[in-house]
Amino acid sequence: MHEVGSGFSSDLLGGRLTMRLKDIGEFGFIDRIRNGCLIRNTSVIKGIGDDCCVFKTSPGLVTLFTTDMLVEKIHFIRQAITPYKLGRKSVAVNISDIAAMGGTPREAVVSIAIPDTLEVEYVDAVYDGMKSIAKEFDVNLLGGDTTASPEHLVVNIALVGEALEDEILYRSGAGAGDVVFLTGTVGSSAAGLDIILAKRAFIEEGPLLDAHHDPRPHVKAGRIIAGLKMASALIDVSDGVAADLGHICRESGVGAIIEETSIPMTNLFRRYCDHFELDPLHLALHVGEDYVLLGTVPGENVDTLAAALKSAGCEFFAIGIIAAATGLRLSGADGSLRTIRPGGWDHFR
Amino acid sequence: MHEVGSGFSSDLLGGRLTMRLKDIGEFGFIDRIRNGCLIRNTSVIKGIGDDCCVFKTSPGLVTLFTTDMLVEKIHFIRQAITPYKLGRKSVAVNISDIAAMGGTPREAVVSIAIPDTLEVEYVDAVYDGMKSIAKEFDVNLLGGDTTASPEHLVVNIALVGEALEDEILYRSGAGAGDVVFLTGTVGSSAAGLDIILAKRAFIEEGPLLDAHHDPRPHVKAGRIIAGLKMASALIDVSDGVAADLGHICRESGVGAIIEETSIPMTNLFRRYCDHFELDPLHLALHVGEDYVLLGTVPGENVDTLAAALKSAGCEFFAIGIIAAATGLRLSGADGSLRTIRPGGWDHFR
Repeated sequence: MHEVGSGFSSDLLGGRLTMRLKDIGEFGFIDRIRNGCLIRNTSVIKGIGDDCCVFKTSPGLVTLFTTDMLVEKIHFIRQAITPYKLGRKSVAVNISDIAAMGGTPREAVVSIAIPDTLEVEYVDAVYDGMKSIAKEFDVNLLGGDTTASPEHLVVNIALVGEALEDEILYRSGAGAGDVVFLTGTVGSSAAGLDIILAKRAFIEEGPLLDAHHDPRPHVKAGRIIAGLKMASALIDVSDGVAADLGHICRESGVGAIIEETSIPMTNLFRRYCDHFELDPLHLALHVGEDYVLLGTVPGENVDTLAAALKSAGCEFFAIGIIAAATGLRLSGADGSLRTIRPGGWDHFR
Repeated sequence: MHEVGSGFSSDLLGGRLTMRLKDIGEFGFIDRIRNGCLIRNTSVIKGIGDDCCVFKTSPGLVTLFTTDMLVEKIHFIRQAITPYKLGRKSVAVNISDIAAMGGTPREAVVSIAIPDTLEVEYVDAVYDGMKSIAKEFDVNLLGGDTTASPEHLVVNIALVGEALEDEILYRSGAGAGDVVFLTGTVGSSAAGLDIILAKRAFIEEGPLLDAHHDPRPHVKAGRIIAGLKMASALIDVSDGVAADLGHICRESGVGAIIEETSIPMTNLFRRYCDHFELDPLHLALHVGEDYVLLGTVPGENVDTLAAALKSAGCEFFAIGIIAAATGLRLSGADGSLRTIRPGGWDHFR
């Protein structure tokens, strides 16, 4: 496929012989990764290999469009995440945005800026991860842009999805009295991040690190919630429950009261917080990257929605209520009610 | 709109008071730039401010999808390009990919990774540039991702366009005997890059720098070429005439002969090359970023296509012919015929 005879340079770290991208070139690299990118042939007219990819939109559906960038040292530390999981996560966070509208993810393009110190095998593994999650969610990788980077690895995914216009769930739409719900536990991703940043050792760290590095977007739950047309607002938990509920409240012109004891957390996450004397509520509410869905639903629809989700193998946790008065408040087990800041992760602060 | 009372830090370079992004935060920043992003209201259901943007595709048309990333120190030097032109170029190179399929650009999302040393005013100017070219080409900026960067500025645009399926022009499709053409002059962008990299002073440098920093995508020419259904292949000149013609030849399974004396160049570009004793042919063929269109058209359609382009104010230059034998050859003024490498810019070499 491409000449590699003189294309080996020694890997200073491992003593192995590895290829650098400069050895195979940009177009050799594109030839190398294109296999396995087309998951679904229907609707695709042209995939990798032209100025644009070309596809058909399903009749009667509208198009959802999102993009997310992962930057080394900002979103990930190269020494802490495997390239395979980095690839999975870069696509997963975009799929999660489609899930948060109640849509179906369809076609993706990848931009990647690669420092010349990186071996080809590392980048292969990033693409293997992208392809594996693309396959799980029936998403095509239809092209993109491959470039050098002076120092840091940057991965950007842009993803197109589709939905019935009258099923789409926005951040706006929450009304006073609506029940606030989550489709999964929160906090584990924050614990995984804490393990990495605080360089902690924890015997059961695997699932917590995976919650942070390999989140599973809740597309199925999103489709069920949208299809029932009973919820009033939906978002995914990327910035943190407090921040993301804050987005819903801001866009809907309302406030919310969360019940401290109702926040769903895994037992493993609680043990982790116990072990290192961390506040589980802080990690669960203010850190984020759980990529479960956070929504609101009028009281009369709660039982139907919860039953539909559970019968499909999804989860439903009522965690609070929307209030007419703006602001976020936390209702404690002791009956206390305190205002919490809607803040979560802010990239510039 | 957002509090800036304590949000001023002194600009060490200019002695002025400027804002940093950390002073206004990610969401303050998004509020700041969202004005002016919606150029065209038709078809848009949801713009900036939710998990995805949502829009309708025109009935009967297929979707084109492309993405391009500009990385500081790889694609631009922050000291050499104004932020306004950087914003314009980041969108222009994507619009050019849509033009190269004969399509119409429609909806864009922006990812930007911003080092914390950068003032808000700089980023404002990047977005002002994006908005200005978006307006010229009737493209909406419908959302994106805004993040910090450890050191280098990175801008990624993903752009969706549309086209009639049977009008789309691919890289494949060129046949032996077809005439190779350009829709504009080449080389000026390479001269602009040379001025920057070699730190040259040239009294007429303005238009050459602009050719590099503020390229104008040939959407109108692309639409005319596609609408006539007479051309056989089309690409935009991003990697260089030799490399991009090489892409057409590779995808079409053919070769090409270019006539040295037919390569269109501006007189200013020739004067620049004369002045610094540079080979104009090398710059015109092997450097790229001209963002004119390069296509092939069967001989019997040449006159009609050329006349249609010229009557619409576009240009048409026949520069060579497609050959059945693979490989690129250059036919000299002296009757010589020499093989040229199809190489242009390769990000990894």
